[in-house]
Amino acid sequence: MTVSAPPATLPVDSDRLWSSLMALARIGEYPDAATGLMGVNRQALTDEDAAGRRLLIGWMEDAGLTVTIDAMGNVFGRREGTDPDALPVVAGSHIDSVGTAGAFDGCLGVLGALEVVRAMNDAGVTTRRPVIVASWTEEEGVRFGTDMLGSAVATGRIPLEQAYDLRDGAGLRFGDELARIGFRGDASAHIEAPHAYVECHIEQGPILAAEGHPVGVVTGVQAISWQRITVHGRAAHAGTTPTELRVDAGLAAARIVVHVRQMVDSGEYGQLRATVGHFRTEPSLPNVVPELAEITVDLRNPDDGLMARAEADLAAFLAQLQTETPGLRIETEQTAKTPVVPFDEDVQNHIEKSAYELGFTTMRLMSGAGHDAQEMAAIAPSAMVFVRGQYDGISHNPREYSTPEDCAAGVRVLAETILGLAE
Amino acid sequence: MTVSAPPATLPVDSDRLWSSLMALARIGEYPDAATGLMGVNRQALTDEDAAGRRLLIGWMEDAGLTVTIDAMGNVFGRREGTDPDALPVVAGSHIDSVGTAGAFDGCLGVLGALEVVRAMNDAGVTTRRPVIVASWTEEEGVRFGTDMLGSAVATGRIPLEQAYDLRDGAGLRFGDELARIGFRGDASAHIEAPHAYVECHIEQGPILAAEGHPVGVVTGVQAISWQRITVHGRAAHAGTTPTELRVDAGLAAARIVVHVRQMVDSGEYGQLRATVGHFRTEPSLPNVVPELAEITVDLRNPDDGLMARAEADLAAFLAQLQTETPGLRIETEQTAKTPVVPFDEDVQNHIEKSAYELGFTTMRLMSGAGHDAQEMAAIAPSAMVFVRGQYDGISHNPREYSTPEDCAAGVRVLAETILGLAE
Repeated sequence: MTVSAPPATLPVDSDRLWSSLMALARIGEYPDAATGLMGVNRQALTDEDAAGRRLLIGWMEDAGLTVTIDAMGNVFGRREGTDPDALPVVAGSHIDSVGTAGAFDGCLGVLGALEVVRAMNDAGVTTRRPVIVASWTEEEGVRFGTDMLGSAVATGRIPLEQAYDLRDGAGLRFGDELARIGFRGDASAHIEAPHAYVECHIEQGPILAAEGHPVGVVTGVQAISWQRITVHGRAAHAGTTPTELRVDAGLAAARIVVHVRQMVDSGEYGQLRATVGHFRTEPSLPNVVPELAEITVDLRNPDDGLMARAEADLAAFLAQLQTETPGLRIETEQTAKTPVVPFDEDVQNHIEKSAYELGFTTMRLMSGAGHDAQEMAAIAPSAMVFVRGQYDGISHNPREYSTPEDCAAGVRVLAETILGLAE
Repeated sequence: MTVSAPPATLPVDSDRLWSSLMALARIGEYPDAATGLMGVNRQALTDEDAAGRRLLIGWMEDAGLTVTIDAMGNVFGRREGTDPDALPVVAGSHIDSVGTAGAFDGCLGVLGALEVVRAMNDAGVTTRRPVIVASWTEEEGVRFGTDMLGSAVATGRIPLEQAYDLRDGAGLRFGDELARIGFRGDASAHIEAPHAYVECHIEQGPILAAEGHPVGVVTGVQAISWQRITVHGRAAHAGTTPTELRVDAGLAAARIVVHVRQMVDSGEYGQLRATVGHFRTEPSLPNVVPELAEITVDLRNPDDGLMARAEADLAAFLAQLQTETPGLRIETEQTAKTPVVPFDEDVQNHIEKSAYELGFTTMRLMSGAGHDAQEMAAIAPSAMVFVRGQYDGISHNPREYSTPEDCAAGVRVLAETILGLAE
């Protein structure tokens, strides 16, 4: 009787992965006043983004990948398989950042996929299918206002020309900025549907830490609804206008903020999360009752039905507020809306099995944030590996942190998943 | 038996007053999108303010006044009296405006006093005391952040150098801008205490219209308290951060706004008025829980004791809010604070008697807004004439309007009051 050795796993190099993450984080770094830490500001299509892209492409070429850049500036590094007819396995994420970022969001997925290829090279592993490392353009959406922009164009949800015509806060056009940094590539903006897509990402939340798991299997992305609410009131002198004659746009907006939290606390909408991130008034003077207030409302829900109920009830509250205050007018604009995106069961099973075989405990959980994987899910079987974060999983903040061990754990799971999918 | 003729009154020219108001309103005019009307934007020490000052000074000189400009840019036009030792009667207001103004706020008091002098000239009237028409610099406080600035320096409440060092939103220094527009005058920044000060001004409120009086006798200015409240929370991802882990600065600020209105509605603080005119968040992104929110709170009360109670109760609410949400920190800064300023009883009697003799019904009322008269009240007997406004007395808005008849009524009352005080 022969006892078979445990299956060999890809030799992911934790130190190499970490030093790549830290090297990329130097590009766009700044001293963050709020935290006292060095933060990262590498927003899409800035000079910093271009420098980050050049660093990444250099590493891809060193790893023997064939690099192509598409018309959206999405960067692909391809490692050939043994079967010329086989569809590839794509793994990636993004390296653009918000204005006050840490080192991990997005970067772990891109540099993790790169590390998988490096480990395959080190081990002399060949796969039947090609493996492609993808780095998507403007995932954060903070500069041009639409998140997952690069992957949304690649998968056909957003037309290329519409993306090109988006403008940043300074009025600069996406298409022009893409050309300016030298990343308006020749390849088609539409990606051919791959065999599968897998993305490793920090959780950006506290659940894995609370449950004691280094990695998680992501079952899908919760529904997201963004609206901009503009309240029109009437400007009036703070000292002379009797309270009963006021049509106070700022007060009405504040009532919306408080009400939205009451909706969350009521429990009537399941696991609803609600955020008012933006609040401004006009004319914004201490002694003038606001004639206008503008807020954003970000709703998330893992259940499409409960999301619809929350949206309807919020709309009813706005209508009531308008009725209660003659002269008040409330406008709403839906600025983003995606239903629940369920991930592919088979890819989830590959991830879970890889974690199990590597000896990591894991759990299935839903993503609260949007990711490029939800765009790829529209054209190919897709799923994600989540990596535990520290400090309650704080993200979009220089305090964002996952340990070198947990990053390596996530990338080892990614590696085995890719290996399994690529055979 | 002889029947005495009714006493002659000064021949105030309603048309001349109105055409002067309309001519001044052309300087700084702009098409106002919100109202569809032409508005006025003639903020202190802008080129428009300088042009307005030059127009005024030309008119003063045409009326035979001796013009002096002090080190704060306050403009004085003096008409001599017959008694070289008599202290003058000063009448005036301001011609600077907020960014979205009408034609009347301040201008009525300056051009009204000018019309009084013109009418005296027309009637060949001499007075024992000199009469001075005053136009104060930066009454609105919208550009350099401190209202009644010119009169506050003239009367000694604010040091000249402190005023010079104030900066506008673009970082420009008050003293430099004053010199740039050519209005840093040679006269001392400190005015000699006059015999009396009287100011005609639109009411900027609905009371005279509601009570059916064209003019009012102002008994004083209510107490004013301004504070800037800064709430420090913790930035967090809108999609991934569980509600119970959030320290939402924007939500806390919204709760303050709602609470302040509840304080007003409670009736516990008498005739308290409260306004949150300014509300902003950081980083102000739809999908980030605000780490900072900044609001202004403007409190007004005709009773100093009830104002103190309102301020104390608001401070207690802020402390409670901080205690309820671990991690939340609330800072407050008092940016303005004036107690109730009672006006002089004798000057009020002069105004009331003038209105009575001219056949105008009137009433006594307190001012909700601050005025230069409250600064002058610190050094000389002072009071104000209010003129009825239309549209609920809307002000700081292009819809601000008082009829030609009501403007003339106010200026006729001003004229007889000045005449009485100057004898």
